[in-house]
Amino acid sequence: MGTREPTIYGRATLEEIHGRLAARAAEIGARVDARQSNHEGFIVDWIGGARGAYEGILLNAGALTHTSIAILDALFAVALPCVEVHLSNPEAREIYRRKSRIARACVGKVSGFGGDSYLLGLEGLVRYLERPANGPTG
Amino acid sequence: MGTREPTIYGRATLEEIHGRLAARAAEIGARVDARQSNHEGFIVDWIGGARGAYEGILLNAGALTHTSIAILDALFAVALPCVEVHLSNPEAREIYRRKSRIARACVGKVSGFGGDSYLLGLEGLVRYLERPANGPTG
Amino acid sequence: MGTREPTIYGRATLEEIHGRLAARAAEIGARVDARQSNHEGFIVDWIGGARGAYEGILLNAGALTHTSIAILDALFAVALPCVEVHLSNPEAREIYRRKSRIARACVGKVSGFGGDSYLLGLEGLVRYLERPANGPTG
Amino acid sequence: MGTREPTIYGRATLEEIHGRLAARAAEIGARVDARQSNHEGFIVDWIGGARGAYEGILLNAGALTHTSIAILDALFAVALPCVEVHLSNPEAREIYRRKSRIARACVGKVSGFGGDSYLLGLEGLVRYLERPANGPTG
Amino acid sequence: MGTREPTIYGRATLEEIHGRLAARAAEIGARVDARQSNHEGFIVDWIGGARGAYEGILLNAGALTHTSIAILDALFAVALPCVEVHLSNPEAREIYRRKSRIARACVGKVSGFGGDSYLLGLEGLVRYLERPANGPTG
Amino acid sequence: MGTREPTIYGRATLEEIHGRLAARAAEIGARVDARQSNHEGFIVDWIGGARGAYEGILLNAGALTHTSIAILDALFAVALPCVEVHLSNPEAREIYRRKSRIARACVGKVSGFGGDSYLLGLEGLVRYLERPANGPTG
Amino acid sequence: MGTREPTIYGRATLEEIHGRLAARAAEIGARVDARQSNHEGFIVDWIGGARGAYEGILLNAGALTHTSIAILDALFAVALPCVEVHLSNPEAREIYRRKSRIARACVGKVSGFGGDSYLLGLEGLVRYLERPANGPTG
Amino acid sequence: MGTREPTIYGRATLEEIHGRLAARAAEIGARVDARQSNHEGFIVDWIGGARGAYEGILLNAGALTHTSIAILDALFAVALPCVEVHLSNPEAREIYRRKSRIARACVGKVSGFGGDSYLLGLEGLVRYLERPANGPTG
Amino acid sequence: MGTREPTIYGRATLEEIHGRLAARAAEIGARVDARQSNHEGFIVDWIGGARGAYEGILLNAGALTHTSIAILDALFAVALPCVEVHLSNPEAREIYRRKSRIARACVGKVSGFGGDSYLLGLEGLVRYLERPANGPTG
Amino acid sequence: MGTREPTIYGRATLEEIHGRLAARAAEIGARVDARQSNHEGFIVDWIGGARGAYEGILLNAGALTHTSIAILDALFAVALPCVEVHLSNPEAREIYRRKSRIARACVGKVSGFGGDSYLLGLEGLVRYLERPANGPTG
Amino acid sequence: MGTREPTIYGRATLEEIHGRLAARAAEIGARVDARQSNHEGFIVDWIGGARGAYEGILLNAGALTHTSIAILDALFAVALPCVEVHLSNPEAREIYRRKSRIARACVGKVSGFGGDSYLLGLEGLVRYLERPANGPTG
Amino acid sequence: MGTREPTIYGRATLEEIHGRLAARAAEIGARVDARQSNHEGFIVDWIGGARGAYEGILLNAGALTHTSIAILDALFAVALPCVEVHLSNPEAREIYRRKSRIARACVGKVSGFGGDSYLLGLEGLVRYLERPANGPTG
Repeated sequence: MGTREPTIYGRATLEEIHGRLAARAAEIGARVDARQSNHEGFIVDWIGGARGAYEGILLNAGALTHTSIAILDALFAVALPCVEVHLSNPEAREIYRRKSRIARACVGKVSGFGGDSYLLGLEGLVRYLERPANGPTG
Repeated sequence: MGTREPTIYGRATLEEIHGRLAARAAEIGARVDARQSNHEGFIVDWIGGARGAYEGILLNAGALTHTSIAILDALFAVALPCVEVHLSNPEAREIYRRKSRIARACVGKVSGFGGDSYLLGLEGLVRYLERPANGPTG
Repeated sequence: MGTREPTIYGRATLEEIHGRLAARAAEIGARVDARQSNHEGFIVDWIGGARGAYEGILLNAGALTHTSIAILDALFAVALPCVEVHLSNPEAREIYRRKSRIARACVGKVSGFGGDSYLLGLEGLVRYLERPANGPTG
Repeated sequence: MGTREPTIYGRATLEEIHGRLAARAAEIGARVDARQSNHEGFIVDWIGGARGAYEGILLNAGALTHTSIAILDALFAVALPCVEVHLSNPEAREIYRRKSRIARACVGKVSGFGGDSYLLGLEGLVRYLERPANGPTG
Repeated sequence: MGTREPTIYGRATLEEIHGRLAARAAEIGARVDARQSNHEGFIVDWIGGARGAYEGILLNAGALTHTSIAILDALFAVALPCVEVHLSNPEAREIYRRKSRIARACVGKVSGFGGDSYLLGLEGLVRYLERPANGPTG
Repeated sequence: MGTREPTIYGRATLEEIHGRLAARAAEIGARVDARQSNHEGFIVDWIGGARGAYEGILLNAGALTHTSIAILDALFAVALPCVEVHLSNPEAREIYRRKSRIARACVGKVSGFGGDSYLLGLEGLVRYLERPANGPTG
Repeated sequence: MGTREPTIYGRATLEEIHGRLAARAAEIGARVDARQSNHEGFIVDWIGGARGAYEGILLNAGALTHTSIAILDALFAVALPCVEVHLSNPEAREIYRRKSRIARACVGKVSGFGGDSYLLGLEGLVRYLERPANGPTG
Repeated sequence: MGTREPTIYGRATLEEIHGRLAARAAEIGARVDARQSNHEGFIVDWIGGARGAYEGILLNAGALTHTSIAILDALFAVALPCVEVHLSNPEAREIYRRKSRIARACVGKVSGFGGDSYLLGLEGLVRYLERPANGPTG
Repeated sequence: MGTREPTIYGRATLEEIHGRLAARAAEIGARVDARQSNHEGFIVDWIGGARGAYEGILLNAGALTHTSIAILDALFAVALPCVEVHLSNPEAREIYRRKSRIARACVGKVSGFGGDSYLLGLEGLVRYLERPANGPTG
Repeated sequence: MGTREPTIYGRATLEEIHGRLAARAAEIGARVDARQSNHEGFIVDWIGGARGAYEGILLNAGALTHTSIAILDALFAVALPCVEVHLSNPEAREIYRRKSRIARACVGKVSGFGGDSYLLGLEGLVRYLERPANGPTG
Repeated sequence: MGTREPTIYGRATLEEIHGRLAARAAEIGARVDARQSNHEGFIVDWIGGARGAYEGILLNAGALTHTSIAILDALFAVALPCVEVHLSNPEAREIYRRKSRIARACVGKVSGFGGDSYLLGLEGLVRYLERPANGPTG
Repeated sequence: MGTREPTIYGRATLEEIHGRLAARAAEIGARVDARQSNHEGFIVDWIGGARGAYEGILLNAGALTHTSIAILDALFAVALPCVEVHLSNPEAREIYRRKSRIARACVGKVSGFGGDSYLLGLEGLVRYLERPANGPTG
């Protein structure tokens, strides 16, 4: 199992969260490869290259969440389960943050728990991968 | 610590998830009081009565998520941290499910993991209550 | 065969229409169980409980027609054929009555014939249940 | 009493429905004159010529339902009761089929019952013509 | 003369306002019957039952003000003069509070004066009932 | 205490309402200075000049209610409590009268009671000025 | 019979058009009183003062055509037949000129013929006043 | 000089207006060729065939005014001056009649004067053709 | 193989393009049957009659591209591959030309190359018909 | 003559299409320089650098088609004829793919023919460059 | 060279800014004539009278920036270069301040620097007037 | 003091403007570090790295002005005063250039003066940094 986490706010935070993710992954028998970029192009490239190398994607697309159809298409094309994560709860903020362009291609979402959003999202993704048929609605 | 879970799809599922929630709550030292109704009025009443009795709210408002300002106002009025949970990922479904009316009053959201959404949401809520200052953005 | 008719305007009218519905049902070999409520929650509960007990639903959701996603979801979940009926023709009235939230989950619609809308809707529903493949478009 | 039915899908279907309409009309003491065209202009002409010759109109305007103000104006001008019929339930289909331009000028609507929509619509129209004051709302 | 006041924020406040309403009503020779519910269905039922029993309605529909067509229809159907009251001035708040669904069926509105909104609304309603022809525009 | 009432319909009505306002003001220990203009510029000038001279503003901006950001800004700038009054209930009229541009800068609103709207608005404003903390929501 | 023409572009043009209007009016037995202002307030005042003094209004409201509800209300209040005139054809220009706020209160419109728009509008208004029942639709 | 008038309401009216148009045309030295159809296709054909045969077009497109881009394109393609005429004032009627699709390709518009709209429009068109440079704005 | 081309601008152009289409068709072993009409009804009729007679449709619907749901439905009903062609590039023109109503029912589109759009569209259609599985996205 | 093709889906496909493009280019006496990137910035850079080096641009901007004003501006600035190509027909897909941001700056478009879209687009571009005046509309 | 500055907030500020403007103008060899009004009509009159008397306009239209098409038309008509200035940065404030109605008729804009906005705007205007061809885009 | 200027149109222009900026900066005791990129990612990176190194930001985001929430978030995060500059006046151009996504995070804006926009923006930024409290509104 592998996940990747392309975009987070700030380098220091990334490293700390990366460490916590790796620790949690180890506890539940998973392995995480974390990356960060402010370039939509690199995120699209990374998603495109994930097929075969990873079993799922944990993605915080930051502000690109609200504008990027290219990331949406990359997720549709790679056809790996993706979990959308956010440090804050964007739907509780400004109106232009209420709409996620990428949600259509994601199996689930965890937002609003700071760094814990990543840990909960990782756990949800691993459980999702372990079970063939998930609950359909809610 | 206490949480309440007013609305889920179907009684059988409710009981199974209720059982899993109680088990997980016991593991992390919390206590859960689960309720279900298709009446917006009862959900508003329950939220209104939660102050003093509970420390947080885990809420799956089902289809009312998309239409009820009354539940939003009840959450604002009770001023307890609330986590929005969904069995499915509504933002990946029909267009009229993309907008959550209640998200403005919620600290976080977990969706798309079936019954696991409740467990992950409970864990996120407990962590949120344990830590005074959460990460602000994402 | 069974149908249920949850919401109509006024009790007197309900009883008279109920009587006419029962008489017409008897003529065509069907049985009708009529109910009325102004509570979206009860309508959702009744629809949820119709599976196994009835073969179809005849529904006049009144003003909730235009606002309730919860009733729409209940109809999708119960997966029984539903016919939307209205005493008047809401699409010929104010602009906020032009859109039916529940039509997506209904096989057909009869509106504008007063109490006769129920009789025609019942007849259409019974014919629909009797024939496996209906005409696809119009 | 007379009705006219300008637009349906396909000639074969038209003839079969026409036959069923004539038979049903005979049963309830009415007479039907059926016509079909894909030309908005002919439908407008026919509606304009119906005054004096017919007592009501049974109209399946097909896709023109969603775009033609000319048919709407023709119905307003002729001032005969019109019933809108559809083989399918357009409101349960694509978003651009949800809005009927002509409903404002129609006393009622029957949709979703295939060819039976015409029979039920005819019956509703005849009952409407027989009773001076119909139920006002729903 | 009678008025009823179905929905307010919180029970304590309700009782205090109810007392002040009763006192003011007594001063101006009116009688008030106050009720509160978070259920749209009960508010619709109460409005439906007001005909014959009361001469007017003083209504704070809370958050349902912005979403309920059912309450609007109930007011249209009962045909009693209704005054919309609000503790705060909703039009000065969030954008989703700017539109009142029920205003179309109300003769007037008093908002923004806290509990005094009820007293002023009662006075306005009584004056409205005492005078046959009110000023038409403003 | 002082209020001003810039815009009303017709001179005769203004004088009669002015007289009733003065009488009511005298009863409750207030003083009113009434003005009328069809010029947005004069209304903006008057509001701008009210600071120091008056304690509050009672404003019927007529049709400018729906179009003038300049009056809104003048009210924000002068920072005196303002009560919006209307002879009719604009929200129950044409769609272009449903939105008040100036409500954002007003503490309350009284509409629909003809000339009584001014008296009730004056009473509400005086009570508002007498009490430091008003009820926040409704 | 009297008409007034409040707003035109430029004084020179106004005087020339005024002269042509007076000449044409003399030919058809009418009398015209022409006025011009860039102040919405004066136009509203003039319209308000036209009752009793004039039989109809010929109005070029210039850019205020697209923004002024106050002029619309003044026309509704004065209840004299008004003809909207424009030198150019605003509907063939920028998108923000396509909508006339004042058309709802006007019996007719002449646009696009330069100064001739006034002469044709005057002639139409005089004919309108001479005939009790005009053609209803088109 | 020649004009053509493709669409009017009803044949009787057409003939009477045609007669009045011919009489007025004779007075001002013009010649009119009048036609009527409810078929957008014929109107497009007629406009397409007008180049070389006529000097201008007087067009009442009826309800097609609000929906037909094909007529707009035909007018752009034929490049003859066109005057839009209407018996009524469509902008003072229902909201879906406020927008003219064809106005972009017309030099002017006369509406609201019943049959006189045609006479005034003809006069305006002839004057337009006689003068090389018309007034640009209004 | 056969294609049909119902609508083009002008007869002269049609004939020249028809000749070039026939020549190109002969080169690639296809046969073309070209038709032109400004009547939506004839285009719908022709499409409806194409099943069995032709293998594909090359369609320039002109301005009807932007307004006709009837043509869209005819294309869906006939279920032959259709290529949308335009002399110009409508998406680079006025805003009301940016949306194609018929694109949903077309396999491809060629626009902006004048008469060459037809030749390229024909070639694309023939290649499409020759290959069972085309590229899915882009 | 030269064209460039910046963005396509997947490397393998790019190479195959590149080979077919080169072969077709050789047949018609043109030369193609193909490039691919998921970075909007590189596409903008490449377009900016095309002046002087190439005679036209063949562009598949993928998902950036729907979001990038920067590419649109780059095309306007470089002022070379550009042909928009797509493997699929985006206008027949999800609603957010219906609008092309870059079409305003393109002379034509070929979509829906898989890899053949590139060959047809190249042929159209070469013909466009060979002929000074293309057909203006369609 | 001359500029005029019609609208600013408050008289005191106007005088101080007027003094600073005059001083800066003297430094760069220009002369400024400053005016202030809350009346749209006077601003339109002043702009109309600027031709011949001034070489450019420095305009802070305050809240009228967002609503006045009359000022926009006056600027288009006078055809003098105009620079839009604002004390604050309106685009960073409420949503109804984001759109400037008058920007279409202005060569440039300076906002957000308090009184310095006027000085910078004056300098930009003088430079603009000194140089025949300014940079076209950005 | 330091500013940076990431994006401008074309290298030659950049160098000339860079030179003029450096010269002006030297005159007023400031220092400028100029950068240019067509990559949103680099601009976000540069803004993120500006804290501590610079006192303010002078930003011409080109077409990204209208689409990038990522740049907006970067500006909010770095919390340095930013001045938005443009060579042209985008609000006077196409409709899709009227809205600036980044204005919410900018203290001011200078547009329309070609290269002078940068000099005026630099001067405004330096003055802004020198004065603790700027004028609040306009």
